[in-house]
Amino acid sequence: MSGFRMNRALAAGLESVRVVRYAAGEREPFDDRVAVEEPLEIRIAGETFAVTMRTPGHDEELVLGLLLSEGIVRSAADVGGIVHCGKPGELGNVIDVSAAPGAVIDWEPEGAVRRATLTTSACGVCGRRSIDDLLARVRPVEDDARFSQAWVQSLTAQLNPRQQNFAASGGVHAAALWDAAGGAAIVREDVGRHNAVDKVVGRCALDKGLPARGRALVVSGRASFELVQKAIVAQIPLLVSVSAPSSLAVAAARAARLTLVGFAREHRFNVYSGEERLLPTAP
Amino acid sequence: MSGFRMNRALAAGLESVRVVRYAAGEREPFDDRVAVEEPLEIRIAGETFAVTMRTPGHDEELVLGLLLSEGIVRSAADVGGIVHCGKPGELGNVIDVSAAPGAVIDWEPEGAVRRATLTTSACGVCGRRSIDDLLARVRPVEDDARFSQAWVQSLTAQLNPRQQNFAASGGVHAAALWDAAGGAAIVREDVGRHNAVDKVVGRCALDKGLPARGRALVVSGRASFELVQKAIVAQIPLLVSVSAPSSLAVAAARAARLTLVGFAREHRFNVYSGEERLLPTAP
Repeated sequence: MSGFRMNRALAAGLESVRVVRYAAGEREPFDDRVAVEEPLEIRIAGETFAVTMRTPGHDEELVLGLLLSEGIVRSAADVGGIVHCGKPGELGNVIDVSAAPGAVIDWEPEGAVRRATLTTSACGVCGRRSIDDLLARVRPVEDDARFSQAWVQSLTAQLNPRQQNFAASGGVHAAALWDAAGGAAIVREDVGRHNAVDKVVGRCALDKGLPARGRALVVSGRASFELVQKAIVAQIPLLVSVSAPSSLAVAAARAARLTLVGFAREHRFNVYSGEERLLPTAP
Repeated sequence: MSGFRMNRALAAGLESVRVVRYAAGEREPFDDRVAVEEPLEIRIAGETFAVTMRTPGHDEELVLGLLLSEGIVRSAADVGGIVHCGKPGELGNVIDVSAAPGAVIDWEPEGAVRRATLTTSACGVCGRRSIDDLLARVRPVEDDARFSQAWVQSLTAQLNPRQQNFAASGGVHAAALWDAAGGAAIVREDVGRHNAVDKVVGRCALDKGLPARGRALVVSGRASFELVQKAIVAQIPLLVSVSAPSSLAVAAARAARLTLVGFAREHRFNVYSGEERLLPTAP
């Protein structure tokens, strides 16, 4: 194709690019691996709903997770199909969502504003000057699960070996849904950290695993309001970030009684909200 | 106000929250600092254009930088005013943009699709299955500036001491615009990495510093397509990321002949595009 196209090989989600490394005055060309980023146009019944940049793969999960997070659909049962458009061999960067028989996907209830703001519209803050209104309307996470400190502490260490494309490229975020009962985890990587979470939630929905009671969502990046919002919608009781939460993430987690853990490392973590779900340390 | 509101004190952009640290079986409450994240509703002539989550402060710069990146306005001269709505003492999370006398801000040229996709619409890929079309239309960065390897290598080290809120919270991204001629740098921090870049570009535009010839944009996070796009619009010849670029970031940088540097550390960096702007090492 064009000279701008890069080689495709390697694992899904990675591309090889020719790079020049400068170190200590030496110039050394080599083949680097970068995370694939491509646009995905999401259509609902043929009409464009949004375009998002993502790492191709698990697109059906991404779309379903996004529609759930945005409140566009209430469950996977509302969706009849999520199908890539285009001919075989084409890139597959357009995907169409159809409603299930008897269901209606109503995505213009608030008009253009909702669509303009896309993921941030989930907060419902358009035109509001007070964030208190927003927080007062947050849906509580109703889950009396309890988690041991040792298990919480183990989650990021368990995630690391599953971040295959991060290890190869350094350029993708990861999200994982772990089951305290020891069930298999869902792990997804993507150039966009919101996408990684949407794919996990979407997979969970396809597996009829929502609400995700008793489970923990682990994210490789920071905990923003939007990630807290996605956890709340999926009714996941525990959100663990390896990094810092934002002020609004903390406030929303407290309003929803979601357990929010930040700076989760091998030997320590901080609890910003919902400490009551942590079991006391054994004496 | 409500119980969800947290104390405000400290530096702008930071809030104090009560946190519990678990380490080695010990439970220790303490006051942590988190980055402030709040929604900003951006209106154009009174009509909602977008809602974005951001760290309050430098909102005028953020809005101008975003409008420039999106191609909604072509220069700061098109904008008459960018003014917070609301009464004194209110949060100031709504801001209105008015056109300059004689100018028109036409933000619905492509209808709802543009607004639906917001920042990602800047790529112009809606409905396209081929990314080659997109890359063929990228505007070249016309700048014959040359940079020494030593200077490129120094940029991230120079950024670190300026990341004040990152040092305090670990929760914000930074962007900086450096002048190879030794001029003062513009440094901005925000919970959103795109916002940090928009604020820098907006500041530069307000200072009548666009196109930003001979300058380097340094970002604390990864280099995505959108950040490359923002650099191209501002005609910044050098984009330096401390982390990994994505495949589309590399492809767009090559199409635009933008110099793209990744994994910039104290003693090394990788050049993904535009190596011709690097001066040879002195013998």
